[in-house]
Amino acid sequence: MNQIYCFGADVGGTSVKLGLFTNDGALLENWEINTRKEEYGRYILEDVGKAILSKMQERKILKEQVAGIGLGVPGPVKEDGTVNGCVNLGWGVFNVANALSEITGLLVVAANDANAAALGELWQGGGKGFESVVMVTLGTGVGGGIVINRKIVTGADGAAGEFGHMTVNLDETEICTCGKKGCLEQFASATGIVRVAKKKCNEFNANSVLKQEEEITAKSVLDGAKIGDELCLQIMNIVGEYLGISLGCVGTVINPSAFVIGGGVSKAGEFLIELLEKKYRKFAFHASIDTAFRLAALGNNAGIYGCAKMILG
Amino acid sequence: MNQIYCFGADVGGTSVKLGLFTNDGALLENWEINTRKEEYGRYILEDVGKAILSKMQERKILKEQVAGIGLGVPGPVKEDGTVNGCVNLGWGVFNVANALSEITGLLVVAANDANAAALGELWQGGGKGFESVVMVTLGTGVGGGIVINRKIVTGADGAAGEFGHMTVNLDETEICTCGKKGCLEQFASATGIVRVAKKKCNEFNANSVLKQEEEITAKSVLDGAKIGDELCLQIMNIVGEYLGISLGCVGTVINPSAFVIGGGVSKAGEFLIELLEKKYRKFAFHASIDTAFRLAALGNNAGIYGCAKMILG
Repeated sequence: MNQIYCFGADVGGTSVKLGLFTNDGALLENWEINTRKEEYGRYILEDVGKAILSKMQERKILKEQVAGIGLGVPGPVKEDGTVNGCVNLGWGVFNVANALSEITGLLVVAANDANAAALGELWQGGGKGFESVVMVTLGTGVGGGIVINRKIVTGADGAAGEFGHMTVNLDETEICTCGKKGCLEQFASATGIVRVAKKKCNEFNANSVLKQEEEITAKSVLDGAKIGDELCLQIMNIVGEYLGISLGCVGTVINPSAFVIGGGVSKAGEFLIELLEKKYRKFAFHASIDTAFRLAALGNNAGIYGCAKMILG
Repeated sequence: MNQIYCFGADVGGTSVKLGLFTNDGALLENWEINTRKEEYGRYILEDVGKAILSKMQERKILKEQVAGIGLGVPGPVKEDGTVNGCVNLGWGVFNVANALSEITGLLVVAANDANAAALGELWQGGGKGFESVVMVTLGTGVGGGIVINRKIVTGADGAAGEFGHMTVNLDETEICTCGKKGCLEQFASATGIVRVAKKKCNEFNANSVLKQEEEITAKSVLDGAKIGDELCLQIMNIVGEYLGISLGCVGTVINPSAFVIGGGVSKAGEFLIELLEKKYRKFAFHASIDTAFRLAALGNNAGIYGCAKMILG
């Protein structure tokens, strides 16, 4: 019998990551194309479709051999494939799954990119072996996705997993990018860590590695904390406390098998995981206190893995 | 063809509620038996089994006509039916679904009682017409359940939906029943409302209906707030703020179609729903801000409805 394949396409603000998978889950090839955002992003899906069809031609793969395309997009996506506006692609409200399906003649299933990444990590990454994971991505912002019993939790408006906008501090006076105040993202994203660091730096009288930095970065704070720099440890204690409150609430509510931590900040590795585990256990309800913590393992490929898994089921 | 039936059995600390349903979801009869807690609750499932078998005899229902029994228990239950200890029944760790199945010779599916109630409300109660609801029960404690795509979210340890133990106040000095500090339950349960009221009452210098009460109750606070008593309004504003933070976080994370509010405190009706909606929209992420709010409609029968629905699928 002929080999069956599927594609994963993870649309980002600057590039679209593409992956060709066999139906037993092996990634045969991955590549990228530019995201053409001109004219409200009207060429993006066309480009994705062309890239996939020409890959099929190149490899002499017939349509009957393709189970489908999993599509990840950077915005809320409902279960039926309707995108509810993707600001950074210029998209309004339309059904992306139907649109790409018309272009390619293939089955398309769509999801939010962070949700797809969570499914990818559960399938082949840091969450492997678990039935339900909450993936939290600590990058420029804080995002994530929820997978329960190996299925993505999409949310009624396609907006589940927006961990960055949980309110964690009622006294915050600065406004978050979302318009609220005191969101987790204001403390635990890379930019949030820098914000906390700058405040603490002014109050801290002793010496610190941060005082030699021209420009404080999340990496310099984490590197400093790892070598025991007191100021950096204090900063990460504050960041950890807010993450502990939020993940404690998430664990108490959803009770997943594991948390998978990804994004640029997670490059701090085991130091971060140990901090989060400790802070989580401080705030979690006793019945869900043993939830595992893992580092994400697929990096930028988590999305295409998750997209493929949406097709393979 | 013969009529097909199913049973719902909702085990509580003092009584077991039982319901006989047709397979198209009509409740034919409901009744109660005592919960015999002696000898670590060893007679409870036997009593439930006997009650169901004798009801079948009474109504001349054959085993082949019974699709199964849905069983709700007041503690964490894993998807396979394993109870992880039910303190107020005296139960340790064992598979309740298998145990009741052996006694009755019928299929048994088990779930936590609050989770079953959430499913019942989605099916036939306040959440009717929605695909996913978060039910929050404001009673002596604060509990609840999550139903996504018409399926209960059980949690890896059977502990999903423990909304009462989300941390909402880092400055709280009193200890919650769970051992943590600053849990939602300390502010938003009936006892929590009284606790907040007693504190505010001492600080409040003007007149108030509460100052005439011998014993402040959650009902007296809510009744006072409804007629515009300033002290009661201030108390409910604090309670509402904590509920707003928590439900805002839950909405931002899970993005359900609706919140269904139940428990004794929910007898305050539309006043409470309006307060919660207002506070929710203050703390929810913009993408999930339109989540509906509904009052629970099935009262103490929510559990047996949900138990039946677990069998009817």
